[in-house]
Amino acid sequence: MRLSRAFLPVLKESPSDAQIVSHKLMLQAGLIRQTSAGIYAWLPLGHRVLQKVEQIVREEQDRIGQEMLMPTIQPADLWKESGRYEAYGPEMLRIEDRHGREMLYGPTNEDMITALFRDDVKSYRDLPRMLYHIQWKFRDEVRPRFGVMRGREFLMKDAYSFDLDEEGAKKSYYRQLLAYLRTFRRMGIKAVPMQADSGPIGGKLSHEFLVLAPTGESEVFYDAAFDEMDLEREGLSYEDDAGLEALFEEVTSHYAATDETHDEARWDAVASADQRTGRGIEVGHIFYFGPKYSEAMGLKVSGKDGDMVTPMMGSYGVGVSRLVGAIIEASHDDNGIIWPEAVAPWKVGLVTMRADDAATVAAAEDLYAKLDAAGAETLYDDRDERGGVKLGGMDLMGLPWQVIIGPRGLKNGVVEVKNRRTGEREELTPEAALAKLTA
Amino acid sequence: MRLSRAFLPVLKESPSDAQIVSHKLMLQAGLIRQTSAGIYAWLPLGHRVLQKVEQIVREEQDRIGQEMLMPTIQPADLWKESGRYEAYGPEMLRIEDRHGREMLYGPTNEDMITALFRDDVKSYRDLPRMLYHIQWKFRDEVRPRFGVMRGREFLMKDAYSFDLDEEGAKKSYYRQLLAYLRTFRRMGIKAVPMQADSGPIGGKLSHEFLVLAPTGESEVFYDAAFDEMDLEREGLSYEDDAGLEALFEEVTSHYAATDETHDEARWDAVASADQRTGRGIEVGHIFYFGPKYSEAMGLKVSGKDGDMVTPMMGSYGVGVSRLVGAIIEASHDDNGIIWPEAVAPWKVGLVTMRADDAATVAAAEDLYAKLDAAGAETLYDDRDERGGVKLGGMDLMGLPWQVIIGPRGLKNGVVEVKNRRTGEREELTPEAALAKLTA
Repeated sequence: MRLSRAFLPVLKESPSDAQIVSHKLMLQAGLIRQTSAGIYAWLPLGHRVLQKVEQIVREEQDRIGQEMLMPTIQPADLWKESGRYEAYGPEMLRIEDRHGREMLYGPTNEDMITALFRDDVKSYRDLPRMLYHIQWKFRDEVRPRFGVMRGREFLMKDAYSFDLDEEGAKKSYYRQLLAYLRTFRRMGIKAVPMQADSGPIGGKLSHEFLVLAPTGESEVFYDAAFDEMDLEREGLSYEDDAGLEALFEEVTSHYAATDETHDEARWDAVASADQRTGRGIEVGHIFYFGPKYSEAMGLKVSGKDGDMVTPMMGSYGVGVSRLVGAIIEASHDDNGIIWPEAVAPWKVGLVTMRADDAATVAAAEDLYAKLDAAGAETLYDDRDERGGVKLGGMDLMGLPWQVIIGPRGLKNGVVEVKNRRTGEREELTPEAALAKLTA
Repeated sequence: MRLSRAFLPVLKESPSDAQIVSHKLMLQAGLIRQTSAGIYAWLPLGHRVLQKVEQIVREEQDRIGQEMLMPTIQPADLWKESGRYEAYGPEMLRIEDRHGREMLYGPTNEDMITALFRDDVKSYRDLPRMLYHIQWKFRDEVRPRFGVMRGREFLMKDAYSFDLDEEGAKKSYYRQLLAYLRTFRRMGIKAVPMQADSGPIGGKLSHEFLVLAPTGESEVFYDAAFDEMDLEREGLSYEDDAGLEALFEEVTSHYAATDETHDEARWDAVASADQRTGRGIEVGHIFYFGPKYSEAMGLKVSGKDGDMVTPMMGSYGVGVSRLVGAIIEASHDDNGIIWPEAVAPWKVGLVTMRADDAATVAAAEDLYAKLDAAGAETLYDDRDERGGVKLGGMDLMGLPWQVIIGPRGLKNGVVEVKNRRTGEREELTPEAALAKLTA
């Protein structure tokens, strides 16, 4: 993409009305713009990141489930059937349509998926199933803040599992546990699963995933074992029940807690060399709730012996739009965002230091064409702007690699390649730079 | 995908409450389920098609514009600023949030994109720009019907162009014209651009695209030239202004009209061998509206000479969810859907005629693994069901190719490959079938 033809507006000043760093950076670098309190438009830069995060979530979910898509607007009747309508409170955006029917903007989808499944599934042969969708949700927060971290309209992946019994439901849960660990690792962030309150049914089958970031909302305490967990080891696959159970045992055996659930006695039992503390941001929650919705909504299937069976369910959420903010909280410096490569809007930022120097422009055009042809996603700042302004913009937008081309280097036959995260700079021939960035 | 593990519910009976064939087939084959009047959940089968249609639209738009994403819920203030709020009528879903603020579920986005662009763009150097998004919209139809063809919550691609003058705006319009022609052709459907009412500003710069289908809502009359238009000819690219203008001249020179705009005198001038009539379904509309929104909302940029310039705008919509229904209207038979390959949920349907015959199952498993490894998207009906039921299901779901494996053929070393559209059947060795389907 050529910056001269792109809509990638950057603010000169850091916005003063944003309280946390991800919100500031998302506004300043032009990822989002607020359109109402707690509601944001995703500009092209932000949208590219959002799509990459979404796609990683999708790919891991596709290994264990099927994607579908439920609508944003739901009938109130569904929520009355499950008994949640009155209880939900003012965070639910309630709507009346032109015929006076009570509707709502879905904050979550347990009720609807249970009804859909109930209407089409009649036999034990159709279980187990895992279904998910990635759809915008709405929660009418009384004081939306922190940008996309606590917005009102937000993008969420929510999956739902249906099993014949608790034994089956556990396997579904373990599969999601592995999918979540792999999902966050692929994004280049550390997310620690922490046992969470599960109500009367869940037992140990409730985990929140917290991304570690110095500005996180909760204090966290965890065992270093989480950082070193081998998620690709032999015997660990979505089809291997024993391997999945062992993973679950491993996860639950290591200490991890927020300040709310912290237990000093168990913490003291962790070797002090393995004690890690920090702050965390919740980005996912997996949760087993058994027959709660299937019972309330009359979902039953005929069992093997002809008797009727009430499926056991679980739900598995990831805050997709929230993750974009959380990744920035976890990965930035004073100059701007530092994207992990897997979610970066472009891999390479190509900058000409002198747009009025023909040799510089020719070298940049040539390298841009070659990077593009090799499939390295490149943002090319070809504008007639001062070099310093361009470099500042690239630092702010946080692309993993910068290639800086100017007359001085070209005299020696080199361009500069900068790693945004480490700040390391290398002088390379254009050919070597191309090889390095497309390796 | 193995059907035994999939959520792909098929109805035994054709639903009696659906009035048009696409609605019937989408319910029966399990693409959608209604969750409220005119609001649908997309089950996995339907969602796969929706994603493919969406992706084709995205790829063509990416060649000429940048994707972004505006929220579904908009503040009423924006629409008051553009002067449309009161005028819009009861099709607008009006919402009050917990603080009593007037909001609405966006039926379209001219107002919002104009405001976003206005707040970030200040100079002629930042024009032209083409921005688009693919987002759910809501129109509170008084009598929603025909399934996703006239639903209330629907997925739309809407693009917006910003140019410094009318000359520039024309080029943006021509680019979209080509993008639309290519988009629909890639989907395997015939869509004819018809000059449409453009209000006082648009002149000739307003075209509706109608998919030809026997059950279409409008009668259409058009010149056979549209069927033969070469969209990949030399000199026709998004960067070639002369080629684009020639395309526009070509499109406007050929006769095409609905019954509403039909002109007998011009029709008679078309050689009778080239006269084509039929019925059509509107799936897209491109439209130049000049300074309508930029003026109303105070969007101005500094021009080359320091004077302030009001950008000229156009909007370009595609009904993405509607297209799924329109494609079915255009492509089905008495047995079910016939997907064009580019939008098919899977390319191949693999069927075992006898799930209790070990050799049949072994041959099917082997072929399934090889098709999968070769990247041919395959739905494998491995259920313990009668062969006839499975074949009926495959016809209904409309995958382009069926591979039928049974004991009788295997004795002779062959499987049957059926083309869903033509009905042609071939007996091939499994190796030859694999080669044919992965060619």
